Amino acid sequence: MSHFATEIAEQPDVLARILADPRVPELARRLRARPVPLVATLARGSSDHAVTFFGYLAGRALGLPVASLPPSLLTLYDARLHLEGALGIGVSQSGESTDVVEGLAALKRSGAHTLAVTNRPGSALAAEADDHLDQHAGRERAVAASKTFTSQMMVLARLVAEWADDDELRTALDAVPGALRSLLDDAATLDRAALRLTHAEGLYVLGRGLSFAAALETALKLKETAYLDAQAYSSAEFQHGPIAVVDPGDPLVILAAEDASLAGLEEVAARLRQVGADLTVVSSSAELLRHAAAPVALPEGMHAVTAGFALVVAGQLLAERLATSRGIDPDAPRHLRKVTRTR
Amino acid sequence: MSHFATEIAEQPDVLARILADPRVPELARRLRARPVPLVATLARGSSDHAVTFFGYLAGRALGLPVASLPPSLLTLYDARLHLEGALGIGVSQSGESTDVVEGLAALKRSGAHTLAVTNRPGSALAAEADDHLDQHAGRERAVAASKTFTSQMMVLARLVAEWADDDELRTALDAVPGALRSLLDDAATLDRAALRLTHAEGLYVLGRGLSFAAALETALKLKETAYLDAQAYSSAEFQHGPIAVVDPGDPLVILAAEDASLAGLEEVAARLRQVGADLTVVSSSAELLRHAAAPVALPEGMHAVTAGFALVVAGQLLAERLATSRGIDPDAPRHLRKVTRTR
Repeated sequence: MSHFATEIAEQPDVLARILADPRVPELARRLRARPVPLVATLARGSSDHAVTFFGYLAGRALGLPVASLPPSLLTLYDARLHLEGALGIGVSQSGESTDVVEGLAALKRSGAHTLAVTNRPGSALAAEADDHLDQHAGRERAVAASKTFTSQMMVLARLVAEWADDDELRTALDAVPGALRSLLDDAATLDRAALRLTHAEGLYVLGRGLSFAAALETALKLKETAYLDAQAYSSAEFQHGPIAVVDPGDPLVILAAEDASLAGLEEVAARLRQVGADLTVVSSSAELLRHAAAPVALPEGMHAVTAGFALVVAGQLLAERLATSRGIDPDAPRHLRKVTRTR
Repeated sequence: MSHFATEIAEQPDVLARILADPRVPELARRLRARPVPLVATLARGSSDHAVTFFGYLAGRALGLPVASLPPSLLTLYDARLHLEGALGIGVSQSGESTDVVEGLAALKRSGAHTLAVTNRPGSALAAEADDHLDQHAGRERAVAASKTFTSQMMVLARLVAEWADDDELRTALDAVPGALRSLLDDAATLDRAALRLTHAEGLYVLGRGLSFAAALETALKLKETAYLDAQAYSSAEFQHGPIAVVDPGDPLVILAAEDASLAGLEEVAARLRQVGADLTVVSSSAELLRHAAAPVALPEGMHAVTAGFALVVAGQLLAERLATSRGIDPDAPRHLRKVTRTR
């Protein structure tokens, strides 16, 4: 079993640890004490996908606009932003991404209160920030992030739930470890879906709203571990141009939660089916699954936030199975290091 | 000659009209009268690439954080953001993108002052917004945006220059029409670069900082007009994972301006050359061009902001030539409509 597969399986326990961390409600209580006009984030790769998920939750539950800043704005162009009263969040599992660490220092100088979300309490990022929340993921041996990604999603999502004192969101998050255990115990349809993609040369992964982060992360995992040239789009963006490249037989993966985003994904699925595309659909929606050549049914009745996590894990399993089927060791991506020190 | 080619050639005149529009400094004067804590934007496809460029300029010259909001946060999830005092900008050439129009109305209800940037003064978006700035591009017949994209970049960039009263930025923008005329008059090396890509099956387009919007837009044009499965990345993001997919001989395009972003692009170019990738480089940097199998030299001494526009037009020309070489009519992308009405 690869490290990647082992670490995928550890996720229910990791996320349960975050749900029990008293530091999250403690920080939320302090954040509630004064108005925060804006959250500015710094993150790269997977970490920025976690921020995408956070942006939806913070906007809905707190009315907070989230600006995901390009680190180069601060590290290369030395922009001095006006961020008095804002919350600046740096997200990096290693806590050693140079541009995120330097960028967070710049946000602090600009007047923001700063928070580090990392898996390393002793890292440079945690030392730089006013506050630190731990990802509780333990050591990750695979270069491709799995548990260090979902733990970022969970830390940020739980922070929103506690900050907004949102019982519906709390309940949806509490259901995540159990939902992931069920998915991990019964992944036979994902196996079959992965086998069908063995000789694919490129792939689009579509999501929307709360499933969009899962689409972004799945495309990255497919690149890193199975060397499949996958690209993620929101279903709305996809219809604004990229849909032009789709030929009959081309493979696409659609990841859908059951909420207001479902209608748009159904629309694009119907259009792609007309074109003759080969659809893999992961969803609990029977309406959507019937468009698929490879349907992967999730249990019905899952909250869309819970589904946001389940879809990420489904994408990880798809990547892990596909790498294996393509004869690639998912633990040793070419040209990659675990800590990337770009400025 | 295709509509796409004709409209690419019209850009110097379109941008000169924007540089002469008295409404831009007039709005800038009013914006200076009170502090603006944040800009929240709504845009899809190409329009969001123009926002990416704007984000760098607004951060540098005004210290303003720019949050590019996913329209679905407002239209599907009904988030009620706290945006008192903020500027909300909706960017859409047609002014009829349903989600941008509805989203801008939601920003107004949330307390933002709203601005429409469109090519249609009579559009729903212009009617919805408190202020409207015109793209002055005239009718665009090709489905793939060219002049309606660079005109969005210019409207937003000039707004920053006037708002910040930034003479260096003004001078860089004033130089754009002339720089584009030179590029359009002498595109022989771009022709050759396009011919080399005729049988490419996928392509990465890399930029960083002020050239990142050009990378995003070039990848989209290559998809829409040449059906080439192109993906854009910042050079920093690319090294965080996607670089794993690169095989010897794989084609990549690097678009670079000469500023603080250049060192990172040189680093990734050297790494890709070691892997044996096939590099097309558009830049004025001799250091960077020497890594290229297909070097496309821009004139030296161009301001990085001016180069940001020139690189976009270089990418358009590359897409137009490549479509022609692949026997595709760039005016009639499959599965696409000029106005996309997603919610």
